[in-house]
Amino acid sequence: MARNPVTAEDGRWIGAAVDAVVFDVFGTVVDWRTGVADEFERIGARVGAKADWLGLTTEWRSLYQPTLLRVVSGESPWRPLDELHRMMLDDLLAEHGLTEFTDTERAELVDAWHHLSPWPDSREGLSRLRETHITATLSNGGTALLTHLARAGRLPFDTILSAELIHSYKPDPKVYLMAAELLEVPPQRLLMTACHLEDLRAAADAGLRTAYIPRPLEWGPGHPTPPTPSWVDLSATDIPDLARQLARE
Amino acid sequence: MARNPVTAEDGRWIGAAVDAVVFDVFGTVVDWRTGVADEFERIGARVGAKADWLGLTTEWRSLYQPTLLRVVSGESPWRPLDELHRMMLDDLLAEHGLTEFTDTERAELVDAWHHLSPWPDSREGLSRLRETHITATLSNGGTALLTHLARAGRLPFDTILSAELIHSYKPDPKVYLMAAELLEVPPQRLLMTACHLEDLRAAADAGLRTAYIPRPLEWGPGHPTPPTPSWVDLSATDIPDLARQLARE
Repeated sequence: MARNPVTAEDGRWIGAAVDAVVFDVFGTVVDWRTGVADEFERIGARVGAKADWLGLTTEWRSLYQPTLLRVVSGESPWRPLDELHRMMLDDLLAEHGLTEFTDTERAELVDAWHHLSPWPDSREGLSRLRETHITATLSNGGTALLTHLARAGRLPFDTILSAELIHSYKPDPKVYLMAAELLEVPPQRLLMTACHLEDLRAAADAGLRTAYIPRPLEWGPGHPTPPTPSWVDLSATDIPDLARQLARE
Repeated sequence: MARNPVTAEDGRWIGAAVDAVVFDVFGTVVDWRTGVADEFERIGARVGAKADWLGLTTEWRSLYQPTLLRVVSGESPWRPLDELHRMMLDDLLAEHGLTEFTDTERAELVDAWHHLSPWPDSREGLSRLRETHITATLSNGGTALLTHLARAGRLPFDTILSAELIHSYKPDPKVYLMAAELLEVPPQRLLMTACHLEDLRAAADAGLRTAYIPRPLEWGPGHPTPPTPSWVDLSATDIPDLARQLARE
């Protein structure tokens, strides 16, 4: 696919090269690790369970990608993310013998993903970016989940786009192209922003522009962020930095 | 379908009876008549055409409902609203012999529907309502069109829902049920708000709650608004009034 020039002569990115910016949410805009671990700890204390809650959170999340890939490949049928979260949680708790968690607690834990705190820069960065570009989520979370997150975190997206709308999940290329189609923006003028390189690689393969925001806390204690690969169009330290770079003319 | 009680003993509506409020947009939130007529006049002057621009606007809009009903009934295939607007416009201009409008002007006129001014109370009312309830559009306009309207009018919806997402149009009951499903709200806890009674009637038939906001300027000069029927759950003079009524406990 032909790509318009995106940098000025001195190599700076030209914000006018894109019309809209879509965001991965878990990890890129909100801090799932702290939010989910805190809920594990709170609910675990209530039912008198003991475990490494942060480790359990990381394990829960590690089941996410393979589970979604089975849906994208057609091996498993599509189900809403809340259902998949519940199935992964049931497996996890069984494996760790954490029988204290009843149906009520499990539902609360699945709901924790609807109420995660944004990274400290997310609200300000999105507000600033929205002045120059259309902004939207493009997440594997459902429409309701994302709406709850945006309301709770006062995140000023122009609209909420979810892979749920076509009953698939990223990295299915159809998800990225759906966003371009719904926003009526050519794929090469749509910027996918994420802290996960697999997400950006799939977006680039679908013809979108890509912005990498390495989130230092995304990979857990002691895990450095992956370095910026040469194929991303843009890299930013946080969302306000992204907004500044895109505002340049 | 069983309906929860929605009024207190003194007959006042209880805001806690609904979780989310979805809005018709053309006429209910934004003033299509003035916006489109102004564009007709501006573009008409540029190409040296003369006509009753306000009358032409009303005629264009009068083609809307029958055109969409043909899609809902399956008589015509689904097409994006912009395309349908263009087809109706072509018919209208041909009928009036207005050959001055080239492709460029026709595209500009279709785009006028993406940039309409909100009614004076819409922004404030939506801001207030959003403090207590999830708010969204539920319109026959496309996602991009609605996103453009919300941005231009700084309308603080939590998200944009369009009939486009299921390739249908209101009053297809599937459109109302789609909103309930995506927002994860039972239909009887979802409030459809509109200034058009056909829209509300179809929403009620699909099991939603209904709020009527008669817009005095919606029906054009000299046309009074239809009176409030007994079957609507709620009627409000404007969006801030709706927010006040729903905030009551």
